[in-house]
Amino acid sequence: MNSILQEFGRKLRLGIIGGGPKSFIGPVHRMAARMSDCYTLTAAVLSSDPERSVHLANPLGISKDRAYPTWEAMLEAEKGRKDAIDVVAVMTPNDSHYPICAAFLDAGFHIICDKPLCNSLHHARDLVQKASSGNQIFCITYNYSAYPMVRQASAMVAEGIIGEIRQVHLTYVQGYLATRSPEEDQAWRLNPQKGGPSLVLGDIGTHAFHLGEYVAGLQVRSIMADVGPTVPGRTAHDYVSCLLRFENEARGSLWVTNAAAGAEHGLSFRIFGSLGGLEWHQEWPNQLRHRQLKGFEQIMTRRRDGTLSAAAESSTRLVRGHPEGYHDAFANLYREAAIAIAAKEQEIYNRDLATYPSVQDGARGVEFIFACLESQRTGCWSQL
Amino acid sequence: MNSILQEFGRKLRLGIIGGGPKSFIGPVHRMAARMSDCYTLTAAVLSSDPERSVHLANPLGISKDRAYPTWEAMLEAEKGRKDAIDVVAVMTPNDSHYPICAAFLDAGFHIICDKPLCNSLHHARDLVQKASSGNQIFCITYNYSAYPMVRQASAMVAEGIIGEIRQVHLTYVQGYLATRSPEEDQAWRLNPQKGGPSLVLGDIGTHAFHLGEYVAGLQVRSIMADVGPTVPGRTAHDYVSCLLRFENEARGSLWVTNAAAGAEHGLSFRIFGSLGGLEWHQEWPNQLRHRQLKGFEQIMTRRRDGTLSAAAESSTRLVRGHPEGYHDAFANLYREAAIAIAAKEQEIYNRDLATYPSVQDGARGVEFIFACLESQRTGCWSQL
Amino acid sequence: MNSILQEFGRKLRLGIIGGGPKSFIGPVHRMAARMSDCYTLTAAVLSSDPERSVHLANPLGISKDRAYPTWEAMLEAEKGRKDAIDVVAVMTPNDSHYPICAAFLDAGFHIICDKPLCNSLHHARDLVQKASSGNQIFCITYNYSAYPMVRQASAMVAEGIIGEIRQVHLTYVQGYLATRSPEEDQAWRLNPQKGGPSLVLGDIGTHAFHLGEYVAGLQVRSIMADVGPTVPGRTAHDYVSCLLRFENEARGSLWVTNAAAGAEHGLSFRIFGSLGGLEWHQEWPNQLRHRQLKGFEQIMTRRRDGTLSAAAESSTRLVRGHPEGYHDAFANLYREAAIAIAAKEQEIYNRDLATYPSVQDGARGVEFIFACLESQRTGCWSQL
Amino acid sequence: MNSILQEFGRKLRLGIIGGGPKSFIGPVHRMAARMSDCYTLTAAVLSSDPERSVHLANPLGISKDRAYPTWEAMLEAEKGRKDAIDVVAVMTPNDSHYPICAAFLDAGFHIICDKPLCNSLHHARDLVQKASSGNQIFCITYNYSAYPMVRQASAMVAEGIIGEIRQVHLTYVQGYLATRSPEEDQAWRLNPQKGGPSLVLGDIGTHAFHLGEYVAGLQVRSIMADVGPTVPGRTAHDYVSCLLRFENEARGSLWVTNAAAGAEHGLSFRIFGSLGGLEWHQEWPNQLRHRQLKGFEQIMTRRRDGTLSAAAESSTRLVRGHPEGYHDAFANLYREAAIAIAAKEQEIYNRDLATYPSVQDGARGVEFIFACLESQRTGCWSQL
Repeated sequence: MNSILQEFGRKLRLGIIGGGPKSFIGPVHRMAARMSDCYTLTAAVLSSDPERSVHLANPLGISKDRAYPTWEAMLEAEKGRKDAIDVVAVMTPNDSHYPICAAFLDAGFHIICDKPLCNSLHHARDLVQKASSGNQIFCITYNYSAYPMVRQASAMVAEGIIGEIRQVHLTYVQGYLATRSPEEDQAWRLNPQKGGPSLVLGDIGTHAFHLGEYVAGLQVRSIMADVGPTVPGRTAHDYVSCLLRFENEARGSLWVTNAAAGAEHGLSFRIFGSLGGLEWHQEWPNQLRHRQLKGFEQIMTRRRDGTLSAAAESSTRLVRGHPEGYHDAFANLYREAAIAIAAKEQEIYNRDLATYPSVQDGARGVEFIFACLESQRTGCWSQL
Repeated sequence: MNSILQEFGRKLRLGIIGGGPKSFIGPVHRMAARMSDCYTLTAAVLSSDPERSVHLANPLGISKDRAYPTWEAMLEAEKGRKDAIDVVAVMTPNDSHYPICAAFLDAGFHIICDKPLCNSLHHARDLVQKASSGNQIFCITYNYSAYPMVRQASAMVAEGIIGEIRQVHLTYVQGYLATRSPEEDQAWRLNPQKGGPSLVLGDIGTHAFHLGEYVAGLQVRSIMADVGPTVPGRTAHDYVSCLLRFENEARGSLWVTNAAAGAEHGLSFRIFGSLGGLEWHQEWPNQLRHRQLKGFEQIMTRRRDGTLSAAAESSTRLVRGHPEGYHDAFANLYREAAIAIAAKEQEIYNRDLATYPSVQDGARGVEFIFACLESQRTGCWSQL
Repeated sequence: MNSILQEFGRKLRLGIIGGGPKSFIGPVHRMAARMSDCYTLTAAVLSSDPERSVHLANPLGISKDRAYPTWEAMLEAEKGRKDAIDVVAVMTPNDSHYPICAAFLDAGFHIICDKPLCNSLHHARDLVQKASSGNQIFCITYNYSAYPMVRQASAMVAEGIIGEIRQVHLTYVQGYLATRSPEEDQAWRLNPQKGGPSLVLGDIGTHAFHLGEYVAGLQVRSIMADVGPTVPGRTAHDYVSCLLRFENEARGSLWVTNAAAGAEHGLSFRIFGSLGGLEWHQEWPNQLRHRQLKGFEQIMTRRRDGTLSAAAESSTRLVRGHPEGYHDAFANLYREAAIAIAAKEQEIYNRDLATYPSVQDGARGVEFIFACLESQRTGCWSQL
Repeated sequence: MNSILQEFGRKLRLGIIGGGPKSFIGPVHRMAARMSDCYTLTAAVLSSDPERSVHLANPLGISKDRAYPTWEAMLEAEKGRKDAIDVVAVMTPNDSHYPICAAFLDAGFHIICDKPLCNSLHHARDLVQKASSGNQIFCITYNYSAYPMVRQASAMVAEGIIGEIRQVHLTYVQGYLATRSPEEDQAWRLNPQKGGPSLVLGDIGTHAFHLGEYVAGLQVRSIMADVGPTVPGRTAHDYVSCLLRFENEARGSLWVTNAAAGAEHGLSFRIFGSLGGLEWHQEWPNQLRHRQLKGFEQIMTRRRDGTLSAAAESSTRLVRGHPEGYHDAFANLYREAAIAIAAKEQEIYNRDLATYPSVQDGARGVEFIFACLESQRTGCWSQL
């Protein structure tokens, strides 16, 4: 067991906001918390309908007095408790991320928040500022970067194993919106007021963008984007393709869509440097392909035998040949946030513990969204 | 949430025996219990060293009075408690499965037990008898059969989608014993007194055998086996290859080894019937290949959208494109055992709940081991 | 045997220009001609060094009087012969394609020419004009479009099986120029005077572009391109990434490079329509992945049993399970050009015979090159 | 060009027997001869119907006087010619291989013959004897062993790269006989009088067996086989599964069938030694997977850049990334037989030229067939 957690001496008390019965991501967050074994699910707001919210908390084992009707009520009540929650996990529609996170940061709570961070650049910068001045942990759940073999790729790039980065190619090709349906008009995700200015960019684009910057260890400096709807009758964006230039002049591209008929997931990166390349596909997350200038391609596999980087080993639980999946990676973020929070609370935090995506990474995602939209409007490259 | 569990009204109290610090499978069992969200880890025996056993329980959140020095102490104490554990999970060396399971069955507890069930045919039959007469749940953790796409294969065969079964081909090709090391002489697994008469058969052979019978929905009737060591200087068996005949005259073969240098896991089945075939590999568990007499091969993928069988859908949690892994499948067994136990306790159990591998399946594994050994001895086909 | 060829009654007499000892593509053309069984290799110019040219022809079985020192000599001599060659195959450096093809077209010969067609738009249009007015066959060896499963994809799109085309994604990711070497300054390919204005666009970009237009059955109307060198110290372009808009407003992207360290070939397409998608990778050319809105992905495989389109079946020779490769596809072009030529000569040509890429397709490639360069210069979208 | 062929100064004159219009393998042999560029198709017997045989030869470019009605006529006529054929390629039903090959060997011709060599052990030994005493080249077309990456595997084993061989696993899983059809009763292949005593063993089993012995560089010494029909109503064998013991005590197994519904080809080997393992699948012939005791799996790919063994490089024509297929491998045998024949004729033959499968390899296949049948009869292991 991690020594920081052991020293802390108890599990963290977790409050959750959002993730009710129809949610995909709600059960994932709760599963991740259980898998990490670092949290007690203590308080919850499970619906925007106050009565329903209270009703839904009981089957999750939450005591009656901490099943709250609204997030404001949770904030108010928990602030006053000796045994207050330590951290709040936010998995509500995108437009509410900002007010909730801002209020809980102001009250001194740590945060775990779904992507995208929020729907405006102004709000993003404000959250970065609040988390920084409050000295709080803020983990944004770019969960794909928590797969061990993505960590491995990032470590290999950092160690220079593929040399100076020259080309980065990112895809995220889903099909769940390949057909227009009448119901989609009701979905908060496709409603710009709630989901944000661009469905595809906020929903999955920021995942791919973060993956690219994370693995390359480089920031994108300019973007040329083609973003819009591809399905007749839809106004929400379901497609984006970008040309990218990184801070070191490396070039790249990105193709992200929710509207590729029959596609399942399709999140991938291919990154090439002066000495080789790495390729990873989320649908087969336990493998990382390593190509080299000379010699043959290697299929690197997830394992715990000392052959992978420390970053990869510490984020895997199973020995070779036993596949890990989406839940395992998501649980890594919960575990790492817990360690960071326990360290903060014991005033032994240091930057090496910032292995999870931060509020700054969340803000980068919002910058990416707005740079794409500006490029689309002008037909030219945008800076970010 | 499952209505039987909801009606039961509380989580099951779980006692664990085995799975201490050096164990691979111990953390897996505990993770599975947490993921299932059906258990409270209540009592434990974590080492054959009584003092150590007690010491190790605390970090797992077990109260002092239920951190037991020995399984006999646990049995004695729990029998007398009002809030006794409901179920005991056994993950000790193979030779202790029988005494522990027999004693806990006699005392009325439900059981979750690692494979192989035990080291003799006589003991196997006795456990079947005890579980049956005691009307208790006994789940043996042939966890690979709990992957959703294995469930899907089994359902497709049962529905006749690939027709009458004609050929079955099973492999389990690992490499962790490819080289002889001095330490292996200390390992209980390679010691026939503890691990059983055949390392490869008990350690992984029963997994492959169960997978074959489970997916085919047929029992093997005769076996011709070549089993033995392949690494110089080793006497423990690290290789078995079999010819199989099933009850319906279908033919098959099986290749299982721990000594294939560089191999990772390699558990797979290929099964062909009169109308098509199915192929699955544990290292890519979210896919099932379906070949058909006419037309093209389909890559069936794990999902929850109504296109898979009920058995597959009820054993998956994530939507398409989001991989599940080893932990998720193992957690399925824990969840299904919990539902069955809760049903037994409420006297609403019915056979449809027996979706987990049973003590009978465990006994089949022991029969398989002894049939292989007999065939090896005689050089002829053995019946089972 | 094809009835048009049978009626023609003899093999075509083939003259080759280029493809000497160091050439990769020379032996490929000659192999393709032999495999097609439609040609007699009759005349050759095998080097820009006249003496060497004559010397090299003998081992290829060419009679002394038709081993020419220069293409001009070949043209002059063959024009006057009763048994003149029927067709000339041009596989010289790019800058000589135009003068050679123009002269042989003027003299009434049919042409098989390597890509890119030539190095200027003006020349491209002139060749289109000459071939058209001369009523001659002009096949450009975009050989990748001759793989049976690419033909199958094209036929499926044309039949509407994946619906209205919405997204097209093309890649061609090679690594042979990942490192700068002093010798590359001598290579004609990297010399703009000989290889044309952009190495990557002329060398492999036109292959990917043609593949996209061929399979989609649609023309690209606008392009936003980022093209340039990625390897320090190189001025020749080794990278291009494009955003594409097709005539029907479908969107797309293209990533082509010769400088991805460790990459082998990487030519692929992924095309999605309203009803499904198709994916193909040249390194596994016998498979075509077909995704559908509902249901599972199919792995369509090359075969000759009536399940594929006529276009696919007529371009394959082997039954299922027996892989075909690069040579087989290249030979398809030679065979189809031979049938078309034999038809022209017998005045029974019709457009259904134009299954090979034509001079117009060659000219599209040149338009693509110049549109990319214009876009790079302006930083804006270019039309084509 | 190969110096032995160059020295020989002319193409070999090839006579073919069999391979008429309905044949799959006939066009393959002729394609292979053309691809090799070493033969002139000079004489033919294309049907067992004499009139038809003569008629069919013309479209293949064979002159009238060498289009023979029967193989006896060909033998008689060619024996007397100054410009007689050098080599005869035999692709007739299995029962005629012996009389044809025996007669042509006796007359001093070299032979290329389809597998299986013949239908009896006695005949097999006689052909070995005749070829040896006549000092003639006899190539049996176990074409799968001519893929470059199979050659690479064989070379790696011979060099000790995977150490001492311990386990060999072979499969050949086809589906073309998955359903019984009335027409199959007419097929010579299923008729023991013509096809030999066991359809599956003669048709494809010898391919898999040869592949195993070739790559392992070891002979099988004992076999336990289960062979028979799996499709109701069929008496011809469509299934065999074997346990194998090699001369060095390595163990193995083999699964070969023509009756796996929906399967395409499925020829593969997996071979493990003390230091690693190799895996190859004919459907993706350009890749060879190399696993190692330590480190990651490598995907070795066909190429010509000095990184593969001499045996692999000399049997490939294309640079990396450009797939070769079935025809290319078959053509390797024709080329290598031509070199050996040209060397024999010039009396410069040496054993290093015996890179093609020989008449001894053909006889091993026949021994394999009869050992399997004996084992099936006795239910015990057979020696070979």
